[in-house]
Amino acid sequence: MTAADIAKAVAGGRLSALDATEAALARIKQHDTTLNSFTDVTSDRARARARAIDADIAAGKTVGPLAGVPFAVKNLFDVAGLTTRAGSKINRDLARAKRDATLIERMEAAGAVLVGALNMGEYAYDFTGENVHDGPSRNPHDTTRMSGGSSGGSGSAVGGALVPIALGSDTNGSIRVPSSFCGIFGLKPTYGRLSRARSFPFVASLDHLGPLARSVTDLALAYDAMQGPDADDAACTTTRGLEPTVPLLANPVSDLRIAIAGGHFQSNLFPEAVEAVGRVAKALGATQVVDIPEAARARAAAYVITTTEGASLHLDRLRKRPNDFDPAVRDRLIAGAMVPAPLVDRAQKFRRWYRAQLAEVFKSVDVLLAPATPCTAPKLGQVTFKLDGVELPVRANIGIHTQPISFIGLPVVAVPVPLEPLPIGVQIITAPWREDIALRVAYALERMGVVAAPSPKRL
Amino acid sequence: MTAADIAKAVAGGRLSALDATEAALARIKQHDTTLNSFTDVTSDRARARARAIDADIAAGKTVGPLAGVPFAVKNLFDVAGLTTRAGSKINRDLARAKRDATLIERMEAAGAVLVGALNMGEYAYDFTGENVHDGPSRNPHDTTRMSGGSSGGSGSAVGGALVPIALGSDTNGSIRVPSSFCGIFGLKPTYGRLSRARSFPFVASLDHLGPLARSVTDLALAYDAMQGPDADDAACTTTRGLEPTVPLLANPVSDLRIAIAGGHFQSNLFPEAVEAVGRVAKALGATQVVDIPEAARARAAAYVITTTEGASLHLDRLRKRPNDFDPAVRDRLIAGAMVPAPLVDRAQKFRRWYRAQLAEVFKSVDVLLAPATPCTAPKLGQVTFKLDGVELPVRANIGIHTQPISFIGLPVVAVPVPLEPLPIGVQIITAPWREDIALRVAYALERMGVVAAPSPKRL
Repeated sequence: MTAADIAKAVAGGRLSALDATEAALARIKQHDTTLNSFTDVTSDRARARARAIDADIAAGKTVGPLAGVPFAVKNLFDVAGLTTRAGSKINRDLARAKRDATLIERMEAAGAVLVGALNMGEYAYDFTGENVHDGPSRNPHDTTRMSGGSSGGSGSAVGGALVPIALGSDTNGSIRVPSSFCGIFGLKPTYGRLSRARSFPFVASLDHLGPLARSVTDLALAYDAMQGPDADDAACTTTRGLEPTVPLLANPVSDLRIAIAGGHFQSNLFPEAVEAVGRVAKALGATQVVDIPEAARARAAAYVITTTEGASLHLDRLRKRPNDFDPAVRDRLIAGAMVPAPLVDRAQKFRRWYRAQLAEVFKSVDVLLAPATPCTAPKLGQVTFKLDGVELPVRANIGIHTQPISFIGLPVVAVPVPLEPLPIGVQIITAPWREDIALRVAYALERMGVVAAPSPKRL
Repeated sequence: MTAADIAKAVAGGRLSALDATEAALARIKQHDTTLNSFTDVTSDRARARARAIDADIAAGKTVGPLAGVPFAVKNLFDVAGLTTRAGSKINRDLARAKRDATLIERMEAAGAVLVGALNMGEYAYDFTGENVHDGPSRNPHDTTRMSGGSSGGSGSAVGGALVPIALGSDTNGSIRVPSSFCGIFGLKPTYGRLSRARSFPFVASLDHLGPLARSVTDLALAYDAMQGPDADDAACTTTRGLEPTVPLLANPVSDLRIAIAGGHFQSNLFPEAVEAVGRVAKALGATQVVDIPEAARARAAAYVITTTEGASLHLDRLRKRPNDFDPAVRDRLIAGAMVPAPLVDRAQKFRRWYRAQLAEVFKSVDVLLAPATPCTAPKLGQVTFKLDGVELPVRANIGIHTQPISFIGLPVVAVPVPLEPLPIGVQIITAPWREDIALRVAYALERMGVVAAPSPKRL
């Protein structure tokens, strides 16, 4: 059942919130020993919350648009009573969170029921979904393959249909990559759109939080529940384009100017990524190819900013507890700690230039299409792959097409093209604050049957 | 004659603008072979401008509050027709500037007459006023001593009474230091107050432009002429506290809460600096000492940001023309090019904390008094001095008391205490956008005879 179906059934009295919750808990119990997507299951809290919703319904009270919908969050969201481990060993020594993250509060205010916290790459510095402390979360379509990172547990849990909605974070692609590998929908909103209050940070100027779901309607329901400024996140202040997107989904998309991102985004691809973008473009009648100038440099600049700000954030931990890190994460952070500052200054200057270039592009185009990942999910532990004939490290290059987009905070809906044997995602990219357009295009593609979250048949 | 006297005489027809200009040009000709404060004298332009003002007066037109007042600018201001050398050899290969800097346009709109461009430390990375390409500008009170940098020519020209007003720039103290050494008044405005459009930059988040003068009224006249937002400088947008300060100067200061900056600002001092702050505090009846938390760290953070952003700005020049730099400037920049980025990130985070601390201080205090320099002007070429018994490099430590203030962009009027044998400055520091208060306090001190620009008797 989708979130929309559950909420409708719960609100209509045909399904209790408690039964919806128990079904999710049972499915987690059945499959998560395989998927390893959850690090905490909050059964007691979930049942109490579900009973409260059922009591409200029994009392004739109005319930929210997500009434009784189970959801889970990447374990970098504060959950009252849990330690916010952010995929690390070190953070387990932190005090337990006293209050939920803003986005959890908003989801629950809309009636959703939190059932747990999800596995993730250490400190979100990851594209694979692997984790040396908790073990890898696994791809629900082939459990020998990566879920994608760093919101790997979010991708795995939703792709495996353990929950209809999960929340994740995306600094360089960490919502879009697991969406692509696990064959689900993911929304990385405009930078500053959704509050990051009471979540563990990575790179302040690149961090985004957002939902992953199995249908566009569910994605939009979650997004609508979470939209709006929050005084607790200095970046989350705008009211631009702030409106419910669910009612807009069925609006026609024939008036939109949709183009294919060229250059960088048409190279560095496996055949399945070419096929996926081609199918989406064809369905939308998009033929124009628009060059995104200096996208490769944008990716390099995103790397420089990520590694240095990440190093700054973790400097004390690197000094005091180097051996408690995932060694690969630690070594990336140590490298970042030694990057000369003028490179970062130049990366930030370039960023302003690049933002202006994309603003120009969006004067003549409403939507850009680009691959979400260069390939379908690699094998767990796979170290290299060949991109355009060059042997390259997998981990560092999975985000090759997501990084140049999040670098300037553009909103993206990642949509799953259900190829066989494995799905792969396409990015629907729009101008800042136009999540509504990306969601409409995704919905049109879903109605045409071009994109869909495949059932996890092999689970 | 002060700028106010000249403007009054010119407006009243008792002195022609041309005669005022010729007097300045003659004085420059007479003394600048000694002072070496000018790198360009714009005689033709100045005479043409003066004649135009005289023609306006003859035609009965209203003239501005600086009518006929000669002034000069540090050679990092664009002057149409000159190359903006910014104290360097390398910049002499740049194309000539096509348009004057905004502040020059505003000074001339008020009737002032530009007579030339002034010597400065290379690329403004200097506290001494020495320059290997142009030779040092010299202290008008003892020509074997430093003028102070980096606006050394500005200090020397005004201190030597070649012009009543000069413009300079201050990134870490470069207006306040030459004001102190040369015994004149200098205003470093709030960060973002005066436009930097069409000036050669150093560190975007620390650069300020401002006037130096021989009286508070002249300083305020220049400031008032230059105030106001400018679309050509992204930092210069505010209209907060934007009002002419000259009419406010004589307002009483007895209502102001004036305190002495403690801790860092009461150590690292030669006896003359202690004496100067003591005289000013006594005259104002200030006895309260307020601690400025972590001022030494603020200075360190200012250094880190300066050297790394400076390195970023000059990176291509360091690569291509290393031998055309002043070797000392080049080596500081190369060091900056290798500073790890996380240190800068932490310096910026600390900066936000420190700004909040000072905002707290200014809730209970209107004015802070601090030394402008730890000592009077050292000898040209002097390499070390003893601060609190410790032998330290002169060049790096002249700004020990200015850096923690400009770091967060607070407005300061540096006032000269005319000690013998050499003057020394005191910083009158206020909350952001309250230049009016600093100018009022400076004016009160001037009226009491506690501060004054000494005549350059030995010229």
